[in-house]
Amino acid sequence: MPEGFTKVTEDVHKPEVQNPYGPNPADFLSNVSEFELIESTLREGEQFANAFFSTEKKIEIAKALDDFGVDYIELTSPVASEQSRRDCEAICKLGLRAKILTHIRCHMDDAKVAVETGVDGVDVVIGTSQFLRQYSHGKDMNYIAQLAVEVIEFVKSKGIEIRFSSEDSFRSDLVDLLNIYRTVDKIGVNRVGIADTVGCANPRQVYELVRTLKSVVKCDIECHFHNDTGCAIANAYTALEGGAKLIDVSVLGIGERNGITPLGGLMARMIAADRDYVLSKYKLHKLRDLENLVAEAVQVNIPFNNPITGFCAFTHKAGIHAKAILANPSTYEILNPSDFGLTRYIHFANRLTGWNAIKSRVDQLNLHLTDEQCKEVTNKIKKLGDVRSLNIDDVDSIIKDFHADLTTPAVRPTIGEPVPHVIEGLDESAAKRAKQ
Amino acid sequence: MPEGFTKVTEDVHKPEVQNPYGPNPADFLSNVSEFELIESTLREGEQFANAFFSTEKKIEIAKALDDFGVDYIELTSPVASEQSRRDCEAICKLGLRAKILTHIRCHMDDAKVAVETGVDGVDVVIGTSQFLRQYSHGKDMNYIAQLAVEVIEFVKSKGIEIRFSSEDSFRSDLVDLLNIYRTVDKIGVNRVGIADTVGCANPRQVYELVRTLKSVVKCDIECHFHNDTGCAIANAYTALEGGAKLIDVSVLGIGERNGITPLGGLMARMIAADRDYVLSKYKLHKLRDLENLVAEAVQVNIPFNNPITGFCAFTHKAGIHAKAILANPSTYEILNPSDFGLTRYIHFANRLTGWNAIKSRVDQLNLHLTDEQCKEVTNKIKKLGDVRSLNIDDVDSIIKDFHADLTTPAVRPTIGEPVPHVIEGLDESAAKRAKQ
Repeated sequence: MPEGFTKVTEDVHKPEVQNPYGPNPADFLSNVSEFELIESTLREGEQFANAFFSTEKKIEIAKALDDFGVDYIELTSPVASEQSRRDCEAICKLGLRAKILTHIRCHMDDAKVAVETGVDGVDVVIGTSQFLRQYSHGKDMNYIAQLAVEVIEFVKSKGIEIRFSSEDSFRSDLVDLLNIYRTVDKIGVNRVGIADTVGCANPRQVYELVRTLKSVVKCDIECHFHNDTGCAIANAYTALEGGAKLIDVSVLGIGERNGITPLGGLMARMIAADRDYVLSKYKLHKLRDLENLVAEAVQVNIPFNNPITGFCAFTHKAGIHAKAILANPSTYEILNPSDFGLTRYIHFANRLTGWNAIKSRVDQLNLHLTDEQCKEVTNKIKKLGDVRSLNIDDVDSIIKDFHADLTTPAVRPTIGEPVPHVIEGLDESAAKRAKQ
Repeated sequence: MPEGFTKVTEDVHKPEVQNPYGPNPADFLSNVSEFELIESTLREGEQFANAFFSTEKKIEIAKALDDFGVDYIELTSPVASEQSRRDCEAICKLGLRAKILTHIRCHMDDAKVAVETGVDGVDVVIGTSQFLRQYSHGKDMNYIAQLAVEVIEFVKSKGIEIRFSSEDSFRSDLVDLLNIYRTVDKIGVNRVGIADTVGCANPRQVYELVRTLKSVVKCDIECHFHNDTGCAIANAYTALEGGAKLIDVSVLGIGERNGITPLGGLMARMIAADRDYVLSKYKLHKLRDLENLVAEAVQVNIPFNNPITGFCAFTHKAGIHAKAILANPSTYEILNPSDFGLTRYIHFANRLTGWNAIKSRVDQLNLHLTDEQCKEVTNKIKKLGDVRSLNIDDVDSIIKDFHADLTTPAVRPTIGEPVPHVIEGLDESAAKRAKQ
């Protein structure tokens, strides 16, 4: 436990009468409560700058993802390199519960290799934006459609799942997009994909595109969001509201540039929307281990502000927050840390602390002080906190000295006299004014 | 420069004919292009678990924020502690261009201290949700309204700006909220605030609440979003679309728990929406130094996946991405790194690399190889990349050896023979299939 924090042991989350963050019944198309995860740490994540996964590491990650409960595991194209193909075959042979996918360019050469690896499905992608059509493959939409039909029919003939996705969907011509999606839907793809390849989309654009597409195709809709402008989690949630069913994620969001929708962040978002569904399907208490496994493999630290597992995600500091959290954690928490096998903390060793937090610490120390006495010792703690950063020992010393003085009548000092560790010379009246 | 990366020196971002991510002209109320920033690193940020800012550090941060161009700087309540009050006075005396605010509870005791500090404005907040009314202050809405009117009229009588905000707005009764906002608007507050104190709101809820509030009040709307469920940037953007004008941010998003809308992340979002406005107002090339200053002060690392300044935010890896980026960066970038004084990288030293990226490296080394020769040497690099993690020296050695063999006819090996550093025994035909 870090210095200056106290673990809050009682869990007094009260059941809520209603959940205003749940699915909106007016959104009759929404799959927000039936979403599925396409986990792409071993595909998109392999495109993260630091990623090099050995075969053994890939298998370890695939097993951990399967255990967590993801619906699909997506792997790097088998034509990316010879070892990529062998690893794909090895993971298909593990007999995991999750379906195994591989992700290829929309090209028969790639498709022929992919269907021989033993995967349950193939995710096909082709650039449809003016940028990619001009600077990447150089093909027009008619050519793309012909290619797509050929590849899709070939993959379907092998009896495995097929997804067709455009790339950079939000910078593609809407009519072109809808045309090709309708075409591939008619020949029977399992899913069509929307990809915000450059991370430019905002939630309202996502909602509108998904909603429109939902009215054009009968198949499921999958979405892939990059995080360049910080909207990947919100866009994923809004896509589900619009009627998408599947979201691409990776552990810690690792991928090209600063990555995609992170698995953990999306879990935070979804548990706020439908706790029962999320808890029934995913082993959230394994999230931290899963993140640590991948973070170690790609040599990064868990970001300090990571949803759920960041070191301070459940730490409350200001006195006014601490007071209410101690009365009922729901006041300042939408997530329950125990759902993730984690614990909340009250940070009481600082100048913003309040007497409720200090009283809680007094109780933990098994000392007995009245509310007035707690307020008095809180003032002493805040005065020292004004001078320097505090740790838990500072606070405990002040409390214990204060308590000892109270219970040793012969040497009890007059109120207001400094106790050990408190720097003298501070304005006493101002400290009183700061009482909370 | 990290190992295995190459800096891409030419900047060939082409001007775009239109910007589909700009403000939507149909949103006639939207302030998306006239937004202002209330920078709260020295208030919300002080509630971050690790934060202890000395007076000198506060002044250094305030000056850096002012130089960056934020519109307001918000400071911790002067009643939080005696030093907090003195620091507030000291920062007011700096004569910064940004307006200085302090943030207090909706209480006359706090207001009386606040107006004496020299601030340009006071941000008043009170909990309005059932949770906070029950477990925090225990007051009903009538009492809150009376208190608000008294505090607002007092602050206005001193000739300084006043904002009234509810706390935990998204779990407050809508009619209660609208009633109190209309009341305070009529008595002349400068701004009303919406706060997602627990980080539970999603973009569509934000849009609807802001839109509704916009139809009820004439004053400006300010929004404050916590990031517990990863939506703080998207919610801020959507609030602006809905008609809000001011967004609370902090450097790196530091604040209670995992924090609020980060300044840098919001800049990424807004520059994609209206580059001219953002560049005219904020010194984006100072963002990295500002983030480093605060990160050092609170002893955290910049998250690996931080928008803009994360170490890989402008790093492209997969061969297909690298190819297009080399032709035109807009294909896979919505942000231009040079706007932030940063540089893009192509990560070519890995098994997912493609011959376009390697050709670019060959050019950088001032060697001359044909496209066919580049494809051949790329296969050799991918083969080694299949066996282990590569660094830039590995790639350069393979390229230089390959080039030396070509240009030394007497000892030129037959094509396909292994060059030094390449592990023998790999399947040559599979490597050929992997050509991109």
